[in-house]
Amino acid sequence: MYTNIQQISGGITAPNGFLASGVCCGLKTSGNDLAIIYSQKSSVAAAVFTANRFQAAPISISKQHLASASTIQAIVANSGCANCATGEQGLKDAQRMTEVVAAGINISADSVLVASTGKIGTFLMMDRIETGINNALSLLAKDGNLSAAEAIMTTDTRPKQAAVELIIQGKQVRIGGMAKGAGMIAPNMATMLAFLTTDAVLPRELLASMLQEAVNVSFNSITIDGDTSTNDMVAILANGASGVVMNELELNIFQTGLNLVCLELAAMMVKDAEGATKLIRIHIKNAPDQDKGRKIGLSIANSTLVKCAMFGADPNWGRILAAIGNAGVEIDLKDVDIYVDRLQLVKNSCATGFDPSLAHQLLSANEIELTVDMKQGTQEAIVLGCDITEEYVSFNAHYST
Amino acid sequence: MYTNIQQISGGITAPNGFLASGVCCGLKTSGNDLAIIYSQKSSVAAAVFTANRFQAAPISISKQHLASASTIQAIVANSGCANCATGEQGLKDAQRMTEVVAAGINISADSVLVASTGKIGTFLMMDRIETGINNALSLLAKDGNLSAAEAIMTTDTRPKQAAVELIIQGKQVRIGGMAKGAGMIAPNMATMLAFLTTDAVLPRELLASMLQEAVNVSFNSITIDGDTSTNDMVAILANGASGVVMNELELNIFQTGLNLVCLELAAMMVKDAEGATKLIRIHIKNAPDQDKGRKIGLSIANSTLVKCAMFGADPNWGRILAAIGNAGVEIDLKDVDIYVDRLQLVKNSCATGFDPSLAHQLLSANEIELTVDMKQGTQEAIVLGCDITEEYVSFNAHYST
Repeated sequence: MYTNIQQISGGITAPNGFLASGVCCGLKTSGNDLAIIYSQKSSVAAAVFTANRFQAAPISISKQHLASASTIQAIVANSGCANCATGEQGLKDAQRMTEVVAAGINISADSVLVASTGKIGTFLMMDRIETGINNALSLLAKDGNLSAAEAIMTTDTRPKQAAVELIIQGKQVRIGGMAKGAGMIAPNMATMLAFLTTDAVLPRELLASMLQEAVNVSFNSITIDGDTSTNDMVAILANGASGVVMNELELNIFQTGLNLVCLELAAMMVKDAEGATKLIRIHIKNAPDQDKGRKIGLSIANSTLVKCAMFGADPNWGRILAAIGNAGVEIDLKDVDIYVDRLQLVKNSCATGFDPSLAHQLLSANEIELTVDMKQGTQEAIVLGCDITEEYVSFNAHYST
Repeated sequence: MYTNIQQISGGITAPNGFLASGVCCGLKTSGNDLAIIYSQKSSVAAAVFTANRFQAAPISISKQHLASASTIQAIVANSGCANCATGEQGLKDAQRMTEVVAAGINISADSVLVASTGKIGTFLMMDRIETGINNALSLLAKDGNLSAAEAIMTTDTRPKQAAVELIIQGKQVRIGGMAKGAGMIAPNMATMLAFLTTDAVLPRELLASMLQEAVNVSFNSITIDGDTSTNDMVAILANGASGVVMNELELNIFQTGLNLVCLELAAMMVKDAEGATKLIRIHIKNAPDQDKGRKIGLSIANSTLVKCAMFGADPNWGRILAAIGNAGVEIDLKDVDIYVDRLQLVKNSCATGFDPSLAHQLLSANEIELTVDMKQGTQEAIVLGCDITEEYVSFNAHYST
């Protein structure tokens, strides 16, 4: 099935009919800080928003627009200010951003989604934003993907883009994406944003369920420090420009492609986590279901003690067992096996008498693979995490607002 | 009501009819490592065990004994080895510990509880344990409380004891306790153990519900790093030696006294947390109920980003708001107020324009008081936490098993 899928360049504008731009309007001290993604045809859209109950103004406005509009044609996003904890004024400003975009391209404001990331508790500088939006609209282009990806960066050290091309019914169907996020580790609370585009023909409900599945195996399966932001948002636009209506098998191929784009963006985020030195890939095997597997993986990845041990290359499997037991999953833990790469540390929940110097060596790599065999079913889950370092604490502590 | 309660010395043996001892039998490199608490009369007992689904052998055995025996007369506890991830042999060893104690004082093994703390994944050195138990039995004494408290220490820097005396019906009713725990931060997984004694007359079911309430407001309201251990246990023995049968009002006084003993022991643990420099007291006001308030407080206390900010004395209230939103509590967050001491940082979920240098100064203290007013009800909860430091990461990383 994978032979029909190949990675391509072009990011968010790789699919047919999408333009983008990114401009600098002075919200950050330097660099692009406002992005627009535009579909030349009206698109169906779906989004997944932060699970944090405290939600920023652009989240509220985007939710409203998704609920009221049947199609979405543009997304506007800024960095440098999260427009969060800004009350009524914040809602007006977020709504105003969509109105300025809509006026410039002659669509309804309801057809525009809005996202913000950056400093919390400050108001948007709306004069700069309005100038920036008009500037960005005039620069919309097929090759605007990199500028747009740069414009949503905050503590990210590099722009994050991915795209794939599927051959379905002999035609090209493309999925593109861009994202920002380096863990919830920035002084003013970093946010995870991801925007996706496709020229596939997809009904709205199906698009929503496919996005949710892709988010579950990617963005919901990574963790830097277990915190969620008030501004997290993943949105997808599907404009149908390929003309390809897919059957069930083809939809499975599409889902795989969408998962791949999201996974690639998610892995870029973990690798870009500030104050971390190692990528940790946790593979939960033989779990009763994917959700329980993911919860166990996230519990391991979020354990500060496990993260410390990974930093120190210490094969401290007791902490991994305790994190499994702490995952809130009703499951029998009598027969758990744990491996680092192929070295077995734990067999049937007891020590194996492994060689600690070999384990230390395996844990000294930049990328660590932990495998946990639950022997409780047939499902699996993969979670990506990272270590914690003195630098992480220092970076997040020694900052004065 | 508090005028009837006063703090006294004597720890675990302060109540009438209890003896204790602590001896060194060579499980640790130095110091006492085996403790026995003994009631001269048979006692009713209750206990709260770790919520971690992965449970050490002594937890299993103590649960069995509590379920099968109508009374409990002794508790044996060792440090230096957690007897965890030790399979069938571990269960036999834990049971054997209770049998050796029982044989020495001529009671049934079912009437003995057992607890272990220390290194995970190694077996108990049973020859040393058996010698130690017999030695400890011969040393049981009214003034054995300090030796016993020392014998359960692992990474603790000091023994932890507390006791109160209540005057009820003109008679003395006493509650004593000892504990160990310095956060789940020791290389081999530290454990929280607390043992309590009282000479009050209490039926078993009532004792159990009173213990649970005391644990909720104390040990379940502190957090170092959000991890739970496989060996955590809080147990209480009530031997009725005071002869005082309490009415409902008097039971409320007793509950207050029990809460005080547990709170004092819990605060000692947080203050002893290695790699932390500050005690953080989080007061959640006007919550819909205590449980929701506690969840919100724990979410703040467990947020790595909040802990970093507290270490750096950074008034980063956005992280506190995000942690509240991340608490998993269904609650309206539109009108949250946040204070450091009496300085208001957030009003109705928006910034107040406070003086950052004053906030920084307040957050530079050794003990920090954060108050969160939810304006959603009339209940309150208090949670104790601590900061995270580079030293914490270093301590927990640079250890080789």
